[in-house]
Amino acid sequence: MLGRKVTLKDIANRAGLSVNTISRALKDKDDIAPATRQAIKTIAKEMGYVGNSAAGSLRSGHSRTIAVIVSDVANPHFGILVKDIENTARKHNYTIFVINTEENNELEERAIQIAISKNVDGILICPAQYSAENMHLMKRNGIPFVLVGRRFVDEPAFDYVICDDEKGGYLAAKHLLDQGHTRILFLNAPQRISSAQERYRGYMRAHEEAGLSVDPALTKEIGIRTGDAKEKVETMVERSEPFTGIFAFNDVIAWEAMYALQLRGCKIPEEYAIIGFDNIHSRMFVPFPLSSISSSQGEMARRAVEILLHKINRPDEEHSFKEVIDTAVISRAAANGAHG
Amino acid sequence: MLGRKVTLKDIANRAGLSVNTISRALKDKDDIAPATRQAIKTIAKEMGYVGNSAAGSLRSGHSRTIAVIVSDVANPHFGILVKDIENTARKHNYTIFVINTEENNELEERAIQIAISKNVDGILICPAQYSAENMHLMKRNGIPFVLVGRRFVDEPAFDYVICDDEKGGYLAAKHLLDQGHTRILFLNAPQRISSAQERYRGYMRAHEEAGLSVDPALTKEIGIRTGDAKEKVETMVERSEPFTGIFAFNDVIAWEAMYALQLRGCKIPEEYAIIGFDNIHSRMFVPFPLSSISSSQGEMARRAVEILLHKINRPDEEHSFKEVIDTAVISRAAANGAHG
Repeated sequence: MLGRKVTLKDIANRAGLSVNTISRALKDKDDIAPATRQAIKTIAKEMGYVGNSAAGSLRSGHSRTIAVIVSDVANPHFGILVKDIENTARKHNYTIFVINTEENNELEERAIQIAISKNVDGILICPAQYSAENMHLMKRNGIPFVLVGRRFVDEPAFDYVICDDEKGGYLAAKHLLDQGHTRILFLNAPQRISSAQERYRGYMRAHEEAGLSVDPALTKEIGIRTGDAKEKVETMVERSEPFTGIFAFNDVIAWEAMYALQLRGCKIPEEYAIIGFDNIHSRMFVPFPLSSISSSQGEMARRAVEILLHKINRPDEEHSFKEVIDTAVISRAAANGAHG
Repeated sequence: MLGRKVTLKDIANRAGLSVNTISRALKDKDDIAPATRQAIKTIAKEMGYVGNSAAGSLRSGHSRTIAVIVSDVANPHFGILVKDIENTARKHNYTIFVINTEENNELEERAIQIAISKNVDGILICPAQYSAENMHLMKRNGIPFVLVGRRFVDEPAFDYVICDDEKGGYLAAKHLLDQGHTRILFLNAPQRISSAQERYRGYMRAHEEAGLSVDPALTKEIGIRTGDAKEKVETMVERSEPFTGIFAFNDVIAWEAMYALQLRGCKIPEEYAIIGFDNIHSRMFVPFPLSSISSSQGEMARRAVEILLHKINRPDEEHSFKEVIDTAVISRAAANGAHG
């Protein structure tokens, strides 16, 4: 046990060879005999030599690592997204590591700085969107990146893969309107986020199409804090604000809204119909039904990785990637045949 | 836009000063006038300079990053653990990044290699436990690490923070036995994992204390794949295997078991009582009740970070950390007053 990182020199000492020979053997250079190369690799492995990313980066030009920057992996939406990104990355022999931002601008900046300083080959980011400044930090450092799930409409230089949020918002509202609900509480994300804006536009379009106006009091901004949706729904019920449908920005917010309604003795689906977003019930078995908008997360993750690797491998190619993946309603019925 | 990482030389060119002056200014050296230091820092920030971890590491000895290696952040158990670790790390001005292993030995080895090559100051790991070999890789490279949630009983040199799994298993089984259930299906993790072994011992102890023998057919190993618990529970119900209680290794497995029972038309809690582990319902609002064993995840995460930082900051101190955090039953009743 050396008590510090194993170096080429440590291997050289053990093998009784020069550092240069060890280095060339580990790089599989032809001027070292195959048997010697093999013996050196065995010693390196026994000693626990792992090289280092900066050296690896100088050698091959690539460290084969990608940073994934998201707001909160404790939300299954992001947990599943990260898993899907990882699965695709692994097929291309890339390792990912994840940094959370908690939807905080300073933590996002710090996350990007860490990623760059760790010599990742590229970054996948679901931006917090307080401004585009943090994205420019990646640009200025020449590091390839792709936005996932959100976009900057005013920044055509940033590539992205998103789902069709406007259509998703439209489909969610229409799903509830078609069931006869005319007052639909929209538990949306903050408006600085592109997907929140776009889903809101879809929600409005469905109402217009149905010849209904929207009461602005029915749209609430839900922050990242657990309990925010619960409190807002409880307040609405307490004040007897009239609504019978809920459209939640994501399925975890929908769960929380259902929790709040149950706590107040409200019946689902008899009194309230609810639809979420992301369709996480397709990826984990949860013992209650929830209709949702499928954002084809797996496809989104796959494309984001592919585009990022394309940009990493062809740095001089000027190609703009703006991908919008289709959304669809997934209707789930309660065991008694009623729809939720 | 340079199209590559911003360097000290880039800043020197822009500022019309030497690389040495820029470097000393960014390190806040006294021999550079305060106004000059400030001006250089402003230029560096504008240009998007982020330094690099290797240089940072040489300068201060520390990169102020920690790698967190867990099996699967898509499982809210790990998502919440990661979040708690991050919150504590942030208070100490440390950034964490997360790598998944999917409970796979080769991916675990790769994750450790990546972490070491990225010059992290330390590693928190929930080991997959196929063997202790990967842990020795960290030892050999002299990188401080702490095991979280699992331990190697035969390796006294590895520090850990776990919960009292034996007591947790005992309390879970006793909770169901006290309600009159005598045949308790244990959906456990694979036996190579220390927490699975220890919870099993507790489950056995509760039965012994109640004067009951345990049918080995009632213990099932559940893998990481979504759907594994569902299939095993469905098979049990299909074959009319007698059991009325379920103790699940974690809450997500409990959800899946509940889903399977509902699918088969079984009533919860009238026909089956269920208890999970980790008490994630205390951290997210989920619209159905589930009794669970609290493993005080927040406390576990906090202590793991504190111990790791202690080891990072006092590398020469020989101190062994073996912490076992208490477990407790959290009983949650269904809205109708029945217990689940």
